[in-house]
Parts: sequence; structure tokens; C-alpha cells
Amino acid sequence: MISERRPIIGVMGGANVSDLDYELAYELGVLVAENGWILLNGGRDAGVMRASAEGAKSRGGLTIGIIPSASKSDANPFIDIPIITNLADARNLINVLTSDVVVACPGSAGTLSEVALALKNRKTVLLLRFDIGRAFEDYRTNGSLINVSTPQECVEKIMQLIH
Amino acid sequence: MISERRPIIGVMGGANVSDLDYELAYELGVLVAENGWILLNGGRDAGVMRASAEGAKSRGGLTIGIIPSASKSDANPFIDIPIITNLADARNLINVLTSDVVVACPGSAGTLSEVALALKNRKTVLLLRFDIGRAFEDYRTNGSLINVSTPQECVEKIMQLIH
Amino acid sequence: MISERRPIIGVMGGANVSDLDYELAYELGVLVAENGWILLNGGRDAGVMRASAEGAKSRGGLTIGIIPSASKSDANPFIDIPIITNLADARNLINVLTSDVVVACPGSAGTLSEVALALKNRKTVLLLRFDIGRAFEDYRTNGSLINVSTPQECVEKIMQLIH
Amino acid sequence: MISERRPIIGVMGGANVSDLDYELAYELGVLVAENGWILLNGGRDAGVMRASAEGAKSRGGLTIGIIPSASKSDANPFIDIPIITNLADARNLINVLTSDVVVACPGSAGTLSEVALALKNRKTVLLLRFDIGRAFEDYRTNGSLINVSTPQECVEKIMQLIH
Repeated sequence: MISERRPIIGVMGGANVSDLDYELAYELGVLVAENGWILLNGGRDAGVMRASAEGAKSRGGLTIGIIPSASKSDANPFIDIPIITNLADARNLINVLTSDVVVACPGSAGTLSEVALALKNRKTVLLLRFDIGRAFEDYRTNGSLINVSTPQECVEKIMQLIH
Repeated sequence: MISERRPIIGVMGGANVSDLDYELAYELGVLVAENGWILLNGGRDAGVMRASAEGAKSRGGLTIGIIPSASKSDANPFIDIPIITNLADARNLINVLTSDVVVACPGSAGTLSEVALALKNRKTVLLLRFDIGRAFEDYRTNGSLINVSTPQECVEKIMQLIH
Repeated sequence: MISERRPIIGVMGGANVSDLDYELAYELGVLVAENGWILLNGGRDAGVMRASAEGAKSRGGLTIGIIPSASKSDANPFIDIPIITNLADARNLINVLTSDVVVACPGSAGTLSEVALALKNRKTVLLLRFDIGRAFEDYRTNGSLINVSTPQECVEKIMQLIH
Repeated sequence: MISERRPIIGVMGGANVSDLDYELAYELGVLVAENGWILLNGGRDAGVMRASAEGAKSRGGLTIGIIPSASKSDANPFIDIPIITNLADARNLINVLTSDVVVACPGSAGTLSEVALALKNRKTVLLLRFDIGRAFEDYRTNGSLINVSTPQECVEKIMQLIH
């Protein structure tokens, strides 16, 4: 389906996360890079945004951060390409539209807004140990909202989706 | 809290809704207008957006629609002031930031993105018969996410919040 | 052309302006209100934004401010309806798309971005004593960029355009 | 000033351009890539957007396109990383904020909106054979708006600016 361009994998998730969730996001970043995919996230220097970019850079991956402010200095040091929007939370729409597949790690309202905007725009969303209850049930039924338990399982699903 | 300016009540909800939900949104629009508040919604000619504006106009209220497209003709006939954004789903952020209180009627992913963006931006959200499961539980605990069962109960809560 | 809804007249211009330009923007606001039109501007408490809203309110007009920040308190006291975007300069697009006619008073790069976005989106722009040199010459030729010298002349042109 | 990250050079300009302007934009893309810089533009398959990306790819450069629509298929084939915004002309703000230096080739109102937004946000703008008359004169005086006549001269200025 996606031919010449390298797939872009969006990794969403909270700015304040547990050590386990930080580690899983890091590991997901590692695997995204090892598969030759581009990693995209919200770019700030916190939580899942930092962890996933750090993991991807540890394997020489390419990382894009969609920055909510006007300042490049808000990007974490593992972001190669900071896209500067100054659009605050409206940049969440860009995060999901630009991603070929969206992964949501545990987070709060910001992450849930990205899950919602992704599903509304017909993206497939993989929930990596992110329990959101019964919300969005129609999307589970039609196969566009999927639970995964590990970064490895997540990457296997991504492979199926982009081929 | 809000002194001179008339409060703006945002009414979110699906474009495809049941007859009952249409009626409740209409009734909510009636009550918003009767209280002298401004009604704001997504402005399109469908579902909760049409119903709530129609109800408000039936009592001579003032209605604002935040239009996702570039065209004023996408506003429903009950919108007095169509704000034209051409920002697609990014306009959802404007919907909630502009509202003093956000009411969410039943809807799908678009409505859930508005609930999420509202909570992230410290707005109080009233769910009018909109069952979203366990998502956003932290916000229930801190009192910014509240279930209401009828338009009347909704309006009583709004009164408490804006005084 | 515009039937039932009240026309919305967008008044753009600088945050730092001369006394004369402040007065002309105030006078334009007066005339917009006296004609029963809605006044729209960028909403902040400075320059043309404050002056035109103050003028419109002196005649009981309705005023809308499209606010670049997340805070209603950035609206000047003469704005009835602050639309809160938190989109920074991207809100300039909303200013011009929502206006049936755009008037540009003297300003700097922000105002010129609004002239440009308005013309690109096929709005007619009236320049009220705003000298922009030879830029946008194609639009002068096709009649969508017009110089006016006084608020009165400006309002006469608006009347021709919206009828 | 810019240390580890590769500089991002934004190349703005019209969708409909003369053969000469197409060639100059292509040549500029070549030089951007040869200097190891990232090329950013509006991403669509027309005019300066296509030409500059084509030139950069002819030398193996990395190219980013900020797409106004919701569809990756609107990106031209020389864009490596399409950033999908669905924000229409509001994406012009992202174009200039993300660029370390903005070059404006000949264009119309869209390009002038980018010049305006760039200057307002304190970016330096190089006009490559783009005659905009007397507009923005204050910015010429303070050195942030500069005429250049050839892609080579443009690149020499960029070198001075980013070191």
C-alpha cells in the first residue's frame, strides 16, 4: 500500500508516565527504527514523547516531533526534525493525520484526543497497554481499534497494516 | 465569575443521533436561550448541531456555529453567526476553548475528541446521557466531568458553574 | 447575496497605530454598527482591534473578537463574543474567512498576512488609508483590492458589495 | 546557533510559475541538498513546491512537504516526508515557523502570506527575484527582508545566517 515513502509510525502517550510505560515506549522506538520506519510524536521533552524518540535514536532512526509551541527549544534532544506549529492542542490533529499507523501508550486527556481524532479520520489505532474502557466500541468492532500488550506485538500488527 | 459578557454554552454531540437525542438537544437549546446564554456548537446541518441551534432560535436565542469547512453554506439555518475556520477537525479545539461550559450529548469519535480537549484545557464537561465508560476517570474524581440525565438537570449544573 | 444573516465586516489593522488611524478605526466601527452589521476583528486590547470595537459598541453594535491566545482575558472590553482559538497567527485565517468583507487599516506584517489570506480566499479587501505599494497588483486589476480614503467611503463600498 | 540538527530551509513560491522561476527553484533545491540542509516546502505537485523538491532529490537531499489537505496523495513525488495538516492555508504558518531561513520565490497571495507570517515571527526572508514593491519596508531596514538574484547568492546568505 505504502510504496516508496518510508512508513511513519505515530507514538502518542502521556507526558507523565510510569517507569514501565517509559521503558515500553523506549522499546517501541527501538523497534520502529530497526524496521526502517520513521518515528513521529508530539516532540516535547517528557514521557512517551522523549522515551520513544530516545529509543529510535539509539538505533539511528529518523524522528519527527510535532511541536505545540513556537519554539524549537521545546523539542527533546532526540528529535531530528521539529515541526513548529504554535497551534497548541490543534497540533494533535497533525500528529495523527501524518502517521500511517497510530500507537497510543498510556496517557490522559491529550492522548485520548489523539485516539479520537485518529479514529474519526479512519486511522488504525493500536493501544499499547492503554486501558480506555468501553469508549470507542464501534471502532473495536470494525477493527480499527486494537489492544496490544507488548512493543513486539505492536510491531507485528504494524507490519500487517502497512503491507 | 463571568461578569458582563453573556456566558457561552457549548453543546457538542453527534451528526447522526436518535430521535430522543435530537429532542433532548433541542430542549437543551431552548433552555440555554431562555436563560439568556449564547449557544455555541459545530454549526453543521445535522444531529445535535442542528437540534440545539433550532431549539435556541425557537426562543430567540443567539447561536454561534464553528464551521469546519470554508463555506458559510455549510452552517445550518439556525446559526446566527457562522465562524468559518477551514481547519477541519482542528476547529474542535475552538469549540471547547470558546465555551464557558461544555455539554456533550451522545456522539462518536468527534464528540469524544471534544470531551478530551475540553478536559485537557480545564473546562467542566457535562455528559447529557452520553455513556463513555471508564475513560477520563481522573476528571470525574476532580469534579470536572459530570453526568446529567436531563436538559433541566444540565442547566441547573451550568447555573452553579457560571455563578 | 447575503440574505437573512447579518453581514460580518472584518476590520484588520495594527496593534500600534497613530492617533489618526485609531480615530478612523473607531469611526469605522461606529458606521458598521449604525448599518446593523456585525463587527469582527482580532479582539486584542490594542490599536485597530480596540478602536473599531469601541466605536461599534458606542452605537450598540455586536462585536466578535477572534483571540489568538487561550485566554478570554486577552479580549478587549468592547468585544461581546470572544472566540478563543489558541492558534496564534493561524487565527488570521479565521478572521478573513468569517468576514463578508475585509477592511484593512494601516498595520504591519500581521495585517498584510490578513490581506494576503483574504485575497487568496476570494474576499474583497478595502484598504483604508493603508499604503501597501505595488504588492497584490493582480487583485487590484480584478477589482478585489480597493483603496478607500475615509470610513464613509469604506461603508459605501461595503454596501455595494453586500447587496 | 543551530548545532546538531540539520538546518531546515523553507522554499516558498507560487503553484503557477514561469519556466525560469521553475528552473531557479530547482537549482535552489539542488544547492540546499548539496549543503546538507533539509528542504521544506508546501508539498503540493505544482510550481516552486515541485521544482525545489525535485532539485533537492536529484542530489539525494531530504525533503519535507507541509500538505494543506488531508491526503498524502497530494504530496508531489519528490517529497520524502509529507506532514498532513488538513488546515488549508493555516498550514502556511507551519511552513515558516519550521524553517530556519525562509526563501520566497515569485508567487501570489499565498506566498505573500508566508512572507508576512515569517517576518511577523522574526524569521529572515530572502526574496529570490520576487518583486513585492514597497511592502514590508520596515523589515528591509532592520535586515530581515533581503533581495537575492540567484540561487547561489541565496545560498551564500543562508550560510551567513545559520552560522
